[in-house]
Amino acid sequence: MSVRAVVLAAGKGKRMNSDLPKVLFEVAGRPLVAWVVEAVASAGVEDITVVVGHGADLVAGALPPGVAVARQEEQLGTGHAVRCALDEMGDLAGDTVLVVPGDTPLFRPESLRSLLDAHTGAATLLTAEMPDPTGYGRVLRDGDRVTAIVEEADATDEQRAVREVALSTYAFDGPALAEALERVENDNAQGEYYLTDVVGILAGDGVGAVAGADPDEVQGVNSLEHLAAVEAAMRRRILSAWMRSGVWVQDPGRTYVDAAVTLEPGARIYADTHLEGATSVAAGAVVGPGVFAVDSEIGPGARVWYSVLRSARVGEEAEVGPYASLRPGTVMEAGSKIGTFVETKATTVGKGSKVPHLSYMGDAVIGEGSNVGAGSITCNYDGYQKHRTVIGDRVRIGSDTMLVAPVELGDDAWTGAGSVISRDVAPGALGVERSQQREVPGYAARRARKAEKKEG
Amino acid sequence: MSVRAVVLAAGKGKRMNSDLPKVLFEVAGRPLVAWVVEAVASAGVEDITVVVGHGADLVAGALPPGVAVARQEEQLGTGHAVRCALDEMGDLAGDTVLVVPGDTPLFRPESLRSLLDAHTGAATLLTAEMPDPTGYGRVLRDGDRVTAIVEEADATDEQRAVREVALSTYAFDGPALAEALERVENDNAQGEYYLTDVVGILAGDGVGAVAGADPDEVQGVNSLEHLAAVEAAMRRRILSAWMRSGVWVQDPGRTYVDAAVTLEPGARIYADTHLEGATSVAAGAVVGPGVFAVDSEIGPGARVWYSVLRSARVGEEAEVGPYASLRPGTVMEAGSKIGTFVETKATTVGKGSKVPHLSYMGDAVIGEGSNVGAGSITCNYDGYQKHRTVIGDRVRIGSDTMLVAPVELGDDAWTGAGSVISRDVAPGALGVERSQQREVPGYAARRARKAEKKEG
Amino acid sequence: MSVRAVVLAAGKGKRMNSDLPKVLFEVAGRPLVAWVVEAVASAGVEDITVVVGHGADLVAGALPPGVAVARQEEQLGTGHAVRCALDEMGDLAGDTVLVVPGDTPLFRPESLRSLLDAHTGAATLLTAEMPDPTGYGRVLRDGDRVTAIVEEADATDEQRAVREVALSTYAFDGPALAEALERVENDNAQGEYYLTDVVGILAGDGVGAVAGADPDEVQGVNSLEHLAAVEAAMRRRILSAWMRSGVWVQDPGRTYVDAAVTLEPGARIYADTHLEGATSVAAGAVVGPGVFAVDSEIGPGARVWYSVLRSARVGEEAEVGPYASLRPGTVMEAGSKIGTFVETKATTVGKGSKVPHLSYMGDAVIGEGSNVGAGSITCNYDGYQKHRTVIGDRVRIGSDTMLVAPVELGDDAWTGAGSVISRDVAPGALGVERSQQREVPGYAARRARKAEKKEG
Repeated sequence: MSVRAVVLAAGKGKRMNSDLPKVLFEVAGRPLVAWVVEAVASAGVEDITVVVGHGADLVAGALPPGVAVARQEEQLGTGHAVRCALDEMGDLAGDTVLVVPGDTPLFRPESLRSLLDAHTGAATLLTAEMPDPTGYGRVLRDGDRVTAIVEEADATDEQRAVREVALSTYAFDGPALAEALERVENDNAQGEYYLTDVVGILAGDGVGAVAGADPDEVQGVNSLEHLAAVEAAMRRRILSAWMRSGVWVQDPGRTYVDAAVTLEPGARIYADTHLEGATSVAAGAVVGPGVFAVDSEIGPGARVWYSVLRSARVGEEAEVGPYASLRPGTVMEAGSKIGTFVETKATTVGKGSKVPHLSYMGDAVIGEGSNVGAGSITCNYDGYQKHRTVIGDRVRIGSDTMLVAPVELGDDAWTGAGSVISRDVAPGALGVERSQQREVPGYAARRARKAEKKEG
Repeated sequence: MSVRAVVLAAGKGKRMNSDLPKVLFEVAGRPLVAWVVEAVASAGVEDITVVVGHGADLVAGALPPGVAVARQEEQLGTGHAVRCALDEMGDLAGDTVLVVPGDTPLFRPESLRSLLDAHTGAATLLTAEMPDPTGYGRVLRDGDRVTAIVEEADATDEQRAVREVALSTYAFDGPALAEALERVENDNAQGEYYLTDVVGILAGDGVGAVAGADPDEVQGVNSLEHLAAVEAAMRRRILSAWMRSGVWVQDPGRTYVDAAVTLEPGARIYADTHLEGATSVAAGAVVGPGVFAVDSEIGPGARVWYSVLRSARVGEEAEVGPYASLRPGTVMEAGSKIGTFVETKATTVGKGSKVPHLSYMGDAVIGEGSNVGAGSITCNYDGYQKHRTVIGDRVRIGSDTMLVAPVELGDDAWTGAGSVISRDVAPGALGVERSQQREVPGYAARRARKAEKKEG
Repeated sequence: MSVRAVVLAAGKGKRMNSDLPKVLFEVAGRPLVAWVVEAVASAGVEDITVVVGHGADLVAGALPPGVAVARQEEQLGTGHAVRCALDEMGDLAGDTVLVVPGDTPLFRPESLRSLLDAHTGAATLLTAEMPDPTGYGRVLRDGDRVTAIVEEADATDEQRAVREVALSTYAFDGPALAEALERVENDNAQGEYYLTDVVGILAGDGVGAVAGADPDEVQGVNSLEHLAAVEAAMRRRILSAWMRSGVWVQDPGRTYVDAAVTLEPGARIYADTHLEGATSVAAGAVVGPGVFAVDSEIGPGARVWYSVLRSARVGEEAEVGPYASLRPGTVMEAGSKIGTFVETKATTVGKGSKVPHLSYMGDAVIGEGSNVGAGSITCNYDGYQKHRTVIGDRVRIGSDTMLVAPVELGDDAWTGAGSVISRDVAPGALGVERSQQREVPGYAARRARKAEKKEG
């Protein structure tokens, strides 16, 4: 017997007020449906079919490889959606079919596993006792046996008082499911084929239930308020796991760490920090407050604060900020520094080199032990093309030096403050472009007289 | 019969520890009393009298137009305050008088409306069952009828155990109220005339009660801790409404949106964002993290992050930040960019023009399709006056160009890196101010010898 | 009779996943054990012995002066730890010994005081009724008398159901404690000597209990998740106290104020603000959003936002930010301004002087009423040493002026935009270094032809 899963991801999410298909809204940097597919896969199910409908191509394109797709052309209800999946899945003899909604990113693999483990007979469903069951389908029982699920819209007052709710998550005997779906009708308030009706149909064959999930797993996303709540719960879950592994987090409520981020034990994360994409932080690194990093690598013992990093690499013991912007292709070698009001792009800063203040370094290679004076800029764009700047080892660039690329400064070269360097500077030489300083005595008094005259 | 409202806004708020009258403390950018007046007006009451006392002129000055003001010269209690209002209101025959405290910004118009709708007889009051009623006046009942309200300080232990509390909000029959106020005495712990005593006086004539308000509406502001709590509740309320309308909010707990802000469905707001005053964000715009915007307009599809905007206009698909400061009078046309470490003031950036890095543009007009090199600055201040800089279309300003205003660069003009441009540049011409680059060979070695000598 | 305290600070904190001894993790800028020692001292106990073990020297070094240290060389349990302390404490005749854990920073002095006040007989312990007592030692009682404490690991199911828990905090009769410790054995699951066993041993002599502490005081820190929770609770406590004293705090949940910070009534603190170390904020100052300040002084009426301050002094009515970095030794006199994209270090900005944009001022003294143009930089580092820049009163520094230190500008001096000033400028004179502006007509067209050719 093998287990095969159907993930229902065809809905529009009317209350999201968006053209984006609901299951593509992201939580911790990953679409809702991808969370669900991952949970199913982590529960040990390899054969997964996702039913797509609204924005079908977009949704199909966002799925991990190896996942099958079934299309539901018309939105005729959850029962119809599952039928669309079964149409693609071929022979179900001897198979268990796990059906899960595609908008519940908080489901844990263990909860799905416990449903599968408990499953016998025709169908087994996940239920939960909710303090406030409003909006959920209620579970009707006859002792241990489930007799039906009734949706909110079709429930009597008495049924609405039931607090045991169905979580739209089921394990079915494959052939029994297929057969029952044939018998589901759409004579209800919405005119749809409900998957929940299968429960009533199969009731005679034995429908069980497992109350397995935590309350926070239950939350499907049907509005942007739900989405924010689910995002917050996911954040807590992600950060709790990192804290248990040895990462110090100043304030988990104010720290945003995407699912794909990796943090080493001994890393320290201050508040107001956003780590996105494939970002990693090594042991001993201190990140934040006020850091936004996406797809970046922060090395051991590095210190990054009040800065924005995109596809950047910060080496061991390197320092960034406050107020730096590292754009893609920035590589900082060990012990280097990018300081305050410094922007870099496609630039390597060599071992121990420093760009401390007010600089823009683009398309540059800086060797080891060099220092870039405040206000220095690589003029890498000639109005048509970008060009490279090469700076050797132990170079001393004076403040406010313009490096008009392409240009190269040899090892141990210096530049004079305020120089526009448009030709290469030889190793050990000083490159300087400057006039004589002149003094105009009595200038202040003259200006004052002139200003007075104008006013007069 | 018409409804007339009295808003009590005379108190000092001793526990606020401030000279500012309590009702002028702000929640979501609006004074407490203005929230209350708006709720009353939204409940359909047009005739509103606000009783002012502490900081009377300041409070009167902060009220919306069309609101009458009554002065309470001495703080002799809430009963006395209402009497001061009635003195100004003239004949009350046939009128209902709604009395509300001026420090409860969370009151919803619907709650006030439900009080008015339920009102018959001499008086009707809003009550609530509180889990912890400490500090509130308790409602004493004889079955359905209210017999009295007793304030905490004067309550017996038995009365303190009552959990139904009065919310200091009443609908009165006008003449009955006026008559009863004449009979209120001040023989209590505080030596004040309590409005609550009116309830006891009118009890014989029939006092009703409506339990209408949500728990969070109840909170009056009596301390800075209350204020912070009310601010948080208002924030949740404002952001919930925007999310329901289709605005994506990453983390409502970390997003500050003033009451006067407008957001279009499809806008996306990241955490650590403060939107104040008359700020608006259009559909498709992405704002934050780390944005502070006051009285600014962010256009469709614009991207603004880690930046401060004051009275600025960001056009369609324009980009701002990270780390930009847009000061008043900044106008960004469609597709323009103000990048990193750039400050602007009274400056227009034309369609598709870019100021990518490390620049200050003040009192400038930049045409379309122009590019301002890194480190360029408008020297707009001559020590006495500000002057204008005019930059044409398709201009290429080299890095570190000083534009000494008043100055004009024609269409298609260029400037050389590091130039001080103090005279106009003709269309299509290059303006440059620069010396020859010289090279001093062996400079590094000479400096090293000199440094050694000094140390030796 | 005198009271002597033993603080247990020898544990490693295995679940912290760190080499740092657990009690040295910080909450609001102060190590856990320092919070406990302070609470004990504030409860009126002068004679305090801290038992150290893991990282003994580090912990001992972090203790306030006047605290005695006892070393526990082997980790043989809490009973053994107290014995190590008693070995150092000499004669206990007539003394009460207060024993408290070193990892409960939230304990209030009043709670410890109430334990001491209630203490009679051989031992008295602090207990609390916990909704979920998991993980705590349960209190076993015979009526009013305590018969034993049983730790979670050794408890029967029935004992585990008890919700009254011990808080590891005791007052003992000194000699009774010493005697009982001799009788404690280690035949339990952990093979350790439990202090809790003393309770059973002394039960015959009369052990009492006081339920004194708030739930949030109870939290010992055994994991980084606990640490974050305790940090949040401490933050709330600190900020509530400041709000009660008259400090306006926009959002206490997003404001980080170390224990050593002082705020005057009338100060206003916006969200996303971190105040660390010995920072002070005076009345009328407005700080935040987005401020990080450590060991800094912010004067009356000053305005600081989106900035980083380290060991800086901001004078009365001075303005900082948005986006400034004030490094150590920055002194701003009254009414001065450090604006946007400005970094300072070891620099005094005189009364009313302004450094508005894009500047680096290091090792400088600026007089009164001076203005530093945008893009100006002190070239304070000659590649070997730092030098000073002296700027007089009423100086006007043109944009993009490089001040090559050592250099001095006299009172009323001016500099021309774009100048490199490497020699002193006399009072009232203009210093300027500049070439002639030249114009190259038709440059844009020529460049365009060249670019076309290349592509062609």
